[in-house]
Amino acid sequence: MEKIQDFSKIKFRIKDQVYEGIVMPRTLYEDEDHITVKLSNGYNIGIEKSKIEILKIEPQKAQSEVIQEKEFESHGPKILIIGTGGTISSKIDYRTGAVKPAFTASQIVDMVPEIKSIASINVKTIMNELSENMQPSNWTLMAKEVHDAFESGYEGIVIAHGTDTMHYSASALSFAIENPKGPVVFVGSQRSSDRPSSDAATNLLGAVTFAAKSYSPGVYVAMHASLDDDIIAIHKGVKVRKNHTSRRDAFKSINARPFAFVDIKKQEIRFTENKQEVKGSMRLYEKFSERAALLKFYPGISDKYLLSIFNKDLFDAIIIEGTGLGHVSRKAFPYLKDYIRNEGFIGMTSQCIWGSVRLTVYETGRDLLSIGVTPLEDMLSEVALVKSMWALGNGFNLKEIMPKNLRGEISERREVQ
Amino acid sequence: MEKIQDFSKIKFRIKDQVYEGIVMPRTLYEDEDHITVKLSNGYNIGIEKSKIEILKIEPQKAQSEVIQEKEFESHGPKILIIGTGGTISSKIDYRTGAVKPAFTASQIVDMVPEIKSIASINVKTIMNELSENMQPSNWTLMAKEVHDAFESGYEGIVIAHGTDTMHYSASALSFAIENPKGPVVFVGSQRSSDRPSSDAATNLLGAVTFAAKSYSPGVYVAMHASLDDDIIAIHKGVKVRKNHTSRRDAFKSINARPFAFVDIKKQEIRFTENKQEVKGSMRLYEKFSERAALLKFYPGISDKYLLSIFNKDLFDAIIIEGTGLGHVSRKAFPYLKDYIRNEGFIGMTSQCIWGSVRLTVYETGRDLLSIGVTPLEDMLSEVALVKSMWALGNGFNLKEIMPKNLRGEISERREVQ
Repeated sequence: MEKIQDFSKIKFRIKDQVYEGIVMPRTLYEDEDHITVKLSNGYNIGIEKSKIEILKIEPQKAQSEVIQEKEFESHGPKILIIGTGGTISSKIDYRTGAVKPAFTASQIVDMVPEIKSIASINVKTIMNELSENMQPSNWTLMAKEVHDAFESGYEGIVIAHGTDTMHYSASALSFAIENPKGPVVFVGSQRSSDRPSSDAATNLLGAVTFAAKSYSPGVYVAMHASLDDDIIAIHKGVKVRKNHTSRRDAFKSINARPFAFVDIKKQEIRFTENKQEVKGSMRLYEKFSERAALLKFYPGISDKYLLSIFNKDLFDAIIIEGTGLGHVSRKAFPYLKDYIRNEGFIGMTSQCIWGSVRLTVYETGRDLLSIGVTPLEDMLSEVALVKSMWALGNGFNLKEIMPKNLRGEISERREVQ
Repeated sequence: MEKIQDFSKIKFRIKDQVYEGIVMPRTLYEDEDHITVKLSNGYNIGIEKSKIEILKIEPQKAQSEVIQEKEFESHGPKILIIGTGGTISSKIDYRTGAVKPAFTASQIVDMVPEIKSIASINVKTIMNELSENMQPSNWTLMAKEVHDAFESGYEGIVIAHGTDTMHYSASALSFAIENPKGPVVFVGSQRSSDRPSSDAATNLLGAVTFAAKSYSPGVYVAMHASLDDDIIAIHKGVKVRKNHTSRRDAFKSINARPFAFVDIKKQEIRFTENKQEVKGSMRLYEKFSERAALLKFYPGISDKYLLSIFNKDLFDAIIIEGTGLGHVSRKAFPYLKDYIRNEGFIGMTSQCIWGSVRLTVYETGRDLLSIGVTPLEDMLSEVALVKSMWALGNGFNLKEIMPKNLRGEISERREVQ
């Protein structure tokens, strides 16, 4: 069967149904017998070529080949989309059924041409990694790219990223870039861009809308607010967590409401609190140390585990995900004591996820305070880990900086229940 | 000021308000200038003696001294309440403000005399630990007590327990007791029993009602369903998690609805699914091994951490809390490979909490499958850890038993989204 050119407009029939859409680019991994068509309703459909009757094909300029890493439209705020990989940049390999990174940022934009009416879009692919493979060195690279992009005049940045560790990366950039000049919006998808019902296009629309129109400096995550395809939630990068393995609305703000909601159809932004104001000039602290560790505490944790981790030769900081209000069992006390005596830092968070640690309520907490453990209020354990890696990397005093609210990672006012 | 006898009926005035209630026992830690009164609406109030005008005192038999570890009423199903400590058994130390274990199970029952109209209550205090100090040896002790109690004719068991690790203990007993003869209901409170707005009484009422009236063998957790004091949720012991550090409705069923709800005022039980039937005779598998470990994975985890943990000399089983659908970064693969080659078991769960691991969707997952990692579906990481400790302790083959649904820890049908 003949090759259909990428981005062609196509009209075809399957059984009794007639469809119109745009042919998506085929990847290295994709079977030649299938094509993927982005339908006019925004959904993608993967179909066997032999099962369709083609009614009309109208080839378009294959934009992705022309634009390479750059393309400007002439109107609207200057927005840079940075591609890093992840599901939003992935396709299904029809031979194995697995999903693999395949698209550049340019190709993603080609699939969602609507965003070009919102802003002057430029694209740049800086890596192509599934987010489970992201390392602190990748955060450093992203932070530099974002910093340089603002310096060179961009008004907002969108980072297409895998969802597995998107909240860790959003935290990392929150700390790495002090006073960013505009919004930095992480966006991903829970279904690959070539799949029917992919959330890639809608999430990207929400992210670009917020980057271009909110005038809210800060680092955010844009994903479905619910299963409704029209409303995209904008979470603060330091208050968000992936709370579901597969749902489109997997990301939830914890101990906070989402910072804003974008209605992508109406192109409206609804803020739930006052916008953050820029308080000083932008500054980059891009280093992260791997001498910080996260430990989820549990009953029956062995002495040997404790001895391995509370080891100043390996780590300068340990973030504990304690139980309840921030506890560990009595049997762990000697290890914590020794570690702190050796000038290690221990920060306490809670594996409950919601709520705040409080070490003044129970005997156990008071003992932990007297040992020198630092309670981290309602900071998420993932955020506390990233912050400690960042604080160590950039030479800050952890005992001072960790309990301080730098980027909104600690809720100033919490609801009383 | 004179000593007011515990459990006296008291009528007193503060300012212009008149109150009636029962004087709660003072603990070792409590200031002599204060008393705690359980009001007739179920709430406790802590008051300075000097600020009240006592209108009437009617001393009652101090039941807790008489009953010691046993007391039977003559009507209703035979229920044993086992005390293990925790906030439900704790009081505020007015000198330091901290909460400490103080009550026996008998004293808890004295504070909630209503439960004696529901069932024939017997009480036994087997330990007095805040739950962060619970160890697998405590699970073994609890399991034996429960097993023996059913053997000696009890129809239901209620275990008063601290909330920090109540879900770990509930999992442990779920596995340890195959085919329990009746309901085993864990119950705790988020506010100590002597505090105003303590949830201890209402939770205990819900737990006893379910233990006495549900005829549903299995292990459960009974806590507030919402902030409404009348409705107590009954969660399956293997599907529940403490999701908030302080709210009364902190416990949530994950990937499942609560098994039932108890309306404590109407004394009604509403089931959300069919009751579990006893399929065979009761059997006790009470051992737990500490040669299993839980590892929450994160970006930037150091090689030395991985090398310390994936060590067959220390552990026979590692439960990974992976990212997203159950992933770890590529850099960890060699450590996992070596560990499995040395006959270690690796089970995969997700730190997303909700949803299910699926290792067939992405390249990373397929690689993990080929290395020999066992995906554990929608099993909670805490449950998977306890199950692996139990499976090792009792000599089961982990590769076979871990992915099997033994006690409802894996959802048979999941909602598609």
